[in-house]
Amino acid sequence: MSATFVTWVDGERQSNVSLPDRGLDFGDGLFETLLLESNEPLFPELHWQRLCRGLAVLEFPDCFEQVRRYFELAVDDLQNERWPRTALRLTVTRGAGPRGYTPPRFPEPRVIVSATRLGATNQELPPAASLVKASMRWGNQPALAGIKHLNRLEQVMAAAEKQRAGADEALMLGQAWQLVSVTSGNLFVVINDEIHTPQLDQCGIAGTRRQLIMETWAPAAGYRVSESRLDIAALQDASEVFYSNTLWGLRPVASLEDLRWERRSVCSDLYRQYRGALS
Amino acid sequence: MSATFVTWVDGERQSNVSLPDRGLDFGDGLFETLLLESNEPLFPELHWQRLCRGLAVLEFPDCFEQVRRYFELAVDDLQNERWPRTALRLTVTRGAGPRGYTPPRFPEPRVIVSATRLGATNQELPPAASLVKASMRWGNQPALAGIKHLNRLEQVMAAAEKQRAGADEALMLGQAWQLVSVTSGNLFVVINDEIHTPQLDQCGIAGTRRQLIMETWAPAAGYRVSESRLDIAALQDASEVFYSNTLWGLRPVASLEDLRWERRSVCSDLYRQYRGALS
Repeated sequence: MSATFVTWVDGERQSNVSLPDRGLDFGDGLFETLLLESNEPLFPELHWQRLCRGLAVLEFPDCFEQVRRYFELAVDDLQNERWPRTALRLTVTRGAGPRGYTPPRFPEPRVIVSATRLGATNQELPPAASLVKASMRWGNQPALAGIKHLNRLEQVMAAAEKQRAGADEALMLGQAWQLVSVTSGNLFVVINDEIHTPQLDQCGIAGTRRQLIMETWAPAAGYRVSESRLDIAALQDASEVFYSNTLWGLRPVASLEDLRWERRSVCSDLYRQYRGALS
Repeated sequence: MSATFVTWVDGERQSNVSLPDRGLDFGDGLFETLLLESNEPLFPELHWQRLCRGLAVLEFPDCFEQVRRYFELAVDDLQNERWPRTALRLTVTRGAGPRGYTPPRFPEPRVIVSATRLGATNQELPPAASLVKASMRWGNQPALAGIKHLNRLEQVMAAAEKQRAGADEALMLGQAWQLVSVTSGNLFVVINDEIHTPQLDQCGIAGTRRQLIMETWAPAAGYRVSESRLDIAALQDASEVFYSNTLWGLRPVASLEDLRWERRSVCSDLYRQYRGALS
């Protein structure tokens, strides 16, 4: 098979989904994107933890074991491929239902897995990214902050801005103009040798790699990370800026419009921890 | 055919949608719900106006004429049915695309139409609704306020609350605890003989029936509607409360938890305008 994109619905290889689906109608669902290296999912437990938090917030019926079975069927099916790396997206929607916003009393969640072939990595620190400041900001919604639900229009619009600007990523602020993230990753800012990452109590997604940096990789490398309320002026005081996500692990930031950062030392130290965790 | 739910994708009767779809992945799209009486769409122009505003905000390519053609194919196809009334949902997504938030450079929007058979109406003022106050509030997102995009989790969660409470609808507040709407309709509050409806500059959906009330039906009945910033205490001063949406037109509110409203006179006057516009 020479496909580079494969999908499964409820464990079966299938290229479409039946209508109606509440994920499509309302964004009524959640997702995770896992990185597979040689068909092995990296840090799956942290993805399951976040997914379970999201299932609880959205009041889904107990379906986690079923979700995991469908995920494993897809991963097993992928063993036939020789993809060096895979971005595996796992989407859980509230399934079908009668028209209207009200969820069915007994929803039957639907599990959609899609696998995209990625090239091999050379395992070196990724090239530093150029950032543009997005005019689209995160909406303020504490009740849904942190989880990875399917309502992602803000990031889509900010990603369109970065594409138009020819930048690698876009910085996204919140409604109070506070620093929050990039479109596909969590932000880290080094000020006076301390690592800060934005609080995510109002908006944003709490990334699995953010959690690993805060709880494991930074302490192992002798750093401490503070969750801070930062405004954009904090970037002028920053000696180093980087972001984290599933596909890059960590990636240094070279610039935000007129601002430039040359230092990569903290990001390099954490990246070594990241690669070390995989060996 | 005895079906009570029919779907079309890009003009063809079809019961599933191919993967990937950015509407499903990110809520990257818009929708409209039109009411058809005897297969005739009510007030289609206002739905097209809002849809076009949404297509512009989301920076979709020019696709409106195509959307309308697919809509008309579905409506034509429905002529074979003898449904007294139909809820016709028109969804426009940014279609397929490579993985990740960034929209494709040349998106090919996808048009999904679903029709649900509804019973006949007796054309009388609907029964007054009981409301519960939802703990889920609207997020604050001025850049996307007013349009009917696919990111609708807040209304889904509030609708789940109303269902648990056994109420007809749920009152939804904004992040500043201001009155915004019910889960499926716009709110109107009569205070000192003046009609107020919440401003929708921070969140909420600007309904077609809300627009008709403000621009046409209220003036024709001798009323004026103010867009106001109202907090929940305003309801204690209200002599009458009602909401508007596509399926009910207008519906009086009988109660919000301990508060009760007996008067229906403004709502009745506007409802007569609404029915008159259809005859």
